[in-house]
Amino acid sequence: MIFIESKENNLFKYTKKLKERKNRNKNNQYIIEGFRLIQEAFKAKVNIDYLIVTEDAFERIDQFLLHYITEDTKIYKISESLFKELISTEGPQGIIAVINMNSMSLSDNGDFYLLCDKIQDPGNLGTIIRTSHAAGVQGIILTKGTVDIYNEKTIRSTMGSIFYIPIHYDDENLTLVKQLKEKGFNIVVTSLDTDKNFFDVDLKGKVLLAVGNEGNGVSSEVFDLANTKVKIPMPGNAESLNVAIAASVIMYEKVRQSNL
Amino acid sequence: MIFIESKENNLFKYTKKLKERKNRNKNNQYIIEGFRLIQEAFKAKVNIDYLIVTEDAFERIDQFLLHYITEDTKIYKISESLFKELISTEGPQGIIAVINMNSMSLSDNGDFYLLCDKIQDPGNLGTIIRTSHAAGVQGIILTKGTVDIYNEKTIRSTMGSIFYIPIHYDDENLTLVKQLKEKGFNIVVTSLDTDKNFFDVDLKGKVLLAVGNEGNGVSSEVFDLANTKVKIPMPGNAESLNVAIAASVIMYEKVRQSNL
Repeated sequence: MIFIESKENNLFKYTKKLKERKNRNKNNQYIIEGFRLIQEAFKAKVNIDYLIVTEDAFERIDQFLLHYITEDTKIYKISESLFKELISTEGPQGIIAVINMNSMSLSDNGDFYLLCDKIQDPGNLGTIIRTSHAAGVQGIILTKGTVDIYNEKTIRSTMGSIFYIPIHYDDENLTLVKQLKEKGFNIVVTSLDTDKNFFDVDLKGKVLLAVGNEGNGVSSEVFDLANTKVKIPMPGNAESLNVAIAASVIMYEKVRQSNL
Repeated sequence: MIFIESKENNLFKYTKKLKERKNRNKNNQYIIEGFRLIQEAFKAKVNIDYLIVTEDAFERIDQFLLHYITEDTKIYKISESLFKELISTEGPQGIIAVINMNSMSLSDNGDFYLLCDKIQDPGNLGTIIRTSHAAGVQGIILTKGTVDIYNEKTIRSTMGSIFYIPIHYDDENLTLVKQLKEKGFNIVVTSLDTDKNFFDVDLKGKVLLAVGNEGNGVSSEVFDLANTKVKIPMPGNAESLNVAIAASVIMYEKVRQSNL
């Protein structure tokens, strides 16, 4: 087994660069941290390129990853101090995995997609991905200006759901969104400007639910493409809802209507 | 106007102590940070004891708090360096307020309460409080072992909703919960052990919705008191939902049913 002992080690230098979004995109790889998430990655059969572990964590590999590690799994050991340069969390477990981004295509016969338009908070995006997975959303589209899905906070908040759901970045012209609209998708946005409650509209059939930026909601470009504008009523007169909550409440209304 | 210049200043020492939960509870006061939240506190007419501001922030007070500051508002100025000892955020705005805890009582004729049982994450609790306010929940009950609502992360995540909704800590015997049950409240918990979807049960009438710890769900004591066990179906086969999402989805199902 190779032991990474120097900052000049090429794999170390390469891996450290993956902490930056531009290098992740250039190399189509990203980092995940911790035993639980790596376990989820193995379970989901995502394409794991290699693991880097500290001595301490190496001793616990069998406990967490016994059924997943094979002879072909590339594992590199590293010192505690170098390991810390590869991660961002406060309570590190001494293990990371480098994952090949997959390009799951948006299914042509799906009926439930989500559009995240310029969401800024990694935790919100991660929670939305997690709920989308649960609610049976078949794909997520992100507009330019949305926080990176491979940000470690986003990944952590997905609790592994990121490995299961196809995610695509749309271009500036919203080409993907327009294609779905042409295919008969009902583009649903939340609006303060409507009397229609989200539970009073028909969400059966092909739906693309669009949720927007924490402060400003969906952009005017997305808003103008919408077929259906709904509001989430607030009988308690709060000012607004967290965007992950708003998205989830509407997603589950579609789940409910699909069960009727 | 009094200028706090020394660490030996009594008000400074007192305020700094309010960063700890035990001192907040002893003195029935807590700290909030930032112009937006303080604006919300004024709007909600909560009992603000005093403000502490840096020179910089003092110059911006009119911009944010013009209509709220009166002759009776106690304002103390402080140096930047001492101010930093009073706060916990990374991007401080130079203003805090010390608030008197209020003891809004649980309304006797309410029909919608929420029980948070040993929730650990301050952001989750804050988001739950925010959605509760929006959904018209009339009071929140917290069991022993739930994270402090006056934790600054919790307060920030409520986006001001904490000023509007009565919140009570129950004792170890769940006396409050048992009282509500005796008054005819339907205690609803989520469970993996039921086939009943949350949208297939009657949530009209008096409901106490109980949500539990991030890892373990509600405690057995609460579970045993439940009248109704529901599940949130996950057609996408995710393992679980974030607790704030689960709580919100069910709260909004009650809002929906109440609109029928």
